[in-house]
Amino acid sequence: MKLQLLMTGTELMSGDIVDSNSAMIAEALADVGISIHRKVTVGDELDLLISELTSMSQTADVIIVNGGLGPTRDDMTAEALAQASGLPLETHPEALDHLTRWCEKRGSRLNQANLKQTVLPQHCSIIDNPRGSAVGFHLMLNNCLVICTPGVPSELCQMLSDTIVSLICPRTDAVDAAIRSRFHTYGLGESNLQQWIDDSELSVPEGVELGFRAGAPTLEVKVQGQQSQSQPYHQFVDQLKALIGDYIVSTGSDSQCRALIDQLRQQGRSLATAESCTGGLIASMITAESGSSAVFEAGYVTYSNRIKTSAIGVNPKTLEAHGAVSEAVVIEMAQGALEASGADYAVAVSGIAGPDGGSDDKPVGSVWIAWGDSTQIETACLCLPYGRKMFQTMVAGAALDLIRRRDCGITSTPRYLIDRAGYASKYN
Amino acid sequence: MKLQLLMTGTELMSGDIVDSNSAMIAEALADVGISIHRKVTVGDELDLLISELTSMSQTADVIIVNGGLGPTRDDMTAEALAQASGLPLETHPEALDHLTRWCEKRGSRLNQANLKQTVLPQHCSIIDNPRGSAVGFHLMLNNCLVICTPGVPSELCQMLSDTIVSLICPRTDAVDAAIRSRFHTYGLGESNLQQWIDDSELSVPEGVELGFRAGAPTLEVKVQGQQSQSQPYHQFVDQLKALIGDYIVSTGSDSQCRALIDQLRQQGRSLATAESCTGGLIASMITAESGSSAVFEAGYVTYSNRIKTSAIGVNPKTLEAHGAVSEAVVIEMAQGALEASGADYAVAVSGIAGPDGGSDDKPVGSVWIAWGDSTQIETACLCLPYGRKMFQTMVAGAALDLIRRRDCGITSTPRYLIDRAGYASKYN
Repeated sequence: MKLQLLMTGTELMSGDIVDSNSAMIAEALADVGISIHRKVTVGDELDLLISELTSMSQTADVIIVNGGLGPTRDDMTAEALAQASGLPLETHPEALDHLTRWCEKRGSRLNQANLKQTVLPQHCSIIDNPRGSAVGFHLMLNNCLVICTPGVPSELCQMLSDTIVSLICPRTDAVDAAIRSRFHTYGLGESNLQQWIDDSELSVPEGVELGFRAGAPTLEVKVQGQQSQSQPYHQFVDQLKALIGDYIVSTGSDSQCRALIDQLRQQGRSLATAESCTGGLIASMITAESGSSAVFEAGYVTYSNRIKTSAIGVNPKTLEAHGAVSEAVVIEMAQGALEASGADYAVAVSGIAGPDGGSDDKPVGSVWIAWGDSTQIETACLCLPYGRKMFQTMVAGAALDLIRRRDCGITSTPRYLIDRAGYASKYN
Repeated sequence: MKLQLLMTGTELMSGDIVDSNSAMIAEALADVGISIHRKVTVGDELDLLISELTSMSQTADVIIVNGGLGPTRDDMTAEALAQASGLPLETHPEALDHLTRWCEKRGSRLNQANLKQTVLPQHCSIIDNPRGSAVGFHLMLNNCLVICTPGVPSELCQMLSDTIVSLICPRTDAVDAAIRSRFHTYGLGESNLQQWIDDSELSVPEGVELGFRAGAPTLEVKVQGQQSQSQPYHQFVDQLKALIGDYIVSTGSDSQCRALIDQLRQQGRSLATAESCTGGLIASMITAESGSSAVFEAGYVTYSNRIKTSAIGVNPKTLEAHGAVSEAVVIEMAQGALEASGADYAVAVSGIAGPDGGSDDKPVGSVWIAWGDSTQIETACLCLPYGRKMFQTMVAGAALDLIRRRDCGITSTPRYLIDRAGYASKYN
């Protein structure tokens, strides 16, 4: 089976946005053993869209069209497919019904622009879009199945898993589905992880692929094999887990925070944060996950010294004697957050995110972290010399990882506390 | 002039990486007034590459091929172009010279794999690659200029500015560089903005393009014109600004937060946040920007009722009488944040992010926002029925926008407070 993609949108041609949708489509299809043969990208030009649809339908068995379903004038997928098929455009009752309910639910009015999304090629079949106002649709053109999908990533994602994969599967005899394992690790770089694997006895079996993808603050490790050769695949995955296990913060599609929340919830433990240089990022990463209220007590974004004292009781004398970026201050921040919130664990961070504020003694990228419970607070000083946002992200990742390690009872010092030791090289 | 891109590489088809090179090429060309007509992406398959090159060269004036210049077996751009052109492959003396110097400089040996990068179609011209071992090259095929470029982004970037743009420019009579304006707006959806423009007297002049890009929480509005027709372009931009001016939160590459920070800093005013349902997101968006310490005092992530009381003094009786998601509570949160922090402005949010926690009275997506200073606190109730993360993002955007409007002295009620009015339809 030959499957081709037709990506539409002038924004894809003009350099304004990077196309991540085709990667999403490719991943969803790889899961069922289908690969993409060819991809064509064009701007919002009706003639070009019609001629691509016509020529692609002559060689492909399935075309997935992405984009151009929106309400604006430059959205012309429906019109292009209608013209390529020689079919009239008409208001599709199911699409109208969907849009009407969509607007009702949101208390917004149906307008002329919106209604355009319900005008589709005659006799096409609708693909439900639970996340957006524009339905998808499909029809046959020159014996080729043409599937039209929305450009909004969240809508496409839902539609892929709900409908599209099962629409395509019956048309292929590909039975050798890909099998995949994903781990998110914190504290390992791509090149040092590769070196670590090379230095070990571990070798990647034939037919198995090992890949890395940086997704700050974590590094995703992906192993892919074929269903037909699952034994060497599973053996390799087990060996890899044994090697890097302590650094794995989550598996599958779970984020680092998702896994930490689930872990703390199982233990019935709660967490508070006291953030200076990360400015609320740790709290917002945790609370972005549903169910976080079961474990997250409070977050204190104590950006100024005054607030460090008023909100969580850091002693002004400690601030004066050691400076805001110091071991003594993060310890008091963590203790203050524990006391003020009543949480089981607290993590506190204070550092220099830059670009200004660094000195020879405490360069930009320096950060003190304190974490623990009422029985013991541990501390570490790191140097993470990245840009501001990446610094904040990596500090947040470390804070979450150090709480995870503490809660898991992992006592060995993670490599990153050694490799990235900051201006004060001590860690307890 | 018709310019097409041919992107090669199985990794682009498999979903493992997202193609950012074509956006880079598009931006470099747009700056000299050249647009990309069509883009085709294929994996590393020789037959497919040859047939694409052949068919593209029949309609395009220029083809930029990206990728497939490396030393491994799956790099086959040179061979495909040689076969498509009917030319033999031979070692190119300049390419060999480049590679030899490249290896010498790095103290590495020339090996068989590397040498493959010097075997190119006969009579092709070399494009210097100061950042990599593989040179680029170009030749004419069916009266079409075919330019082959490396897939490594940093090498491509350098080659684009050094050579490729000037190689293409003489072939086009486009001397008309693009001019662009960007505005970020909050509170306008793509379809209602389009409708608003359609309903106004505003018409987009010929040669001017108006585009939208959703980048939650803001919607980017982009206007693009040509240098040669700058008058109607500037006139249109002015008219558009007059129409949607109150909704513009930032311009150019500045984010909503960046602009708000600069605005507050100029006024010498400071801000504190009290966040329940956004869990620190507002604070982290602000503190992600450098210089935020000049305006950001404190953030209170008061996720539980207990912390609302202990951190910012919300009366337990108010919580009991009205519930955490209520006008009375957000008012006390905002007042408490003002008092505890000493900031000039405070914004407080409390809502139901979901997926759980909603009721018929207060459905998921409901949120109360309070904002103001010690002289006046305003409130609004919104319904933003999105998924959890999008809900949090849109609430944060509203909070930032309402502070901006207050600080600017914009007194008219923004449309989104009306269109998105929540279960309690009142807003002051």
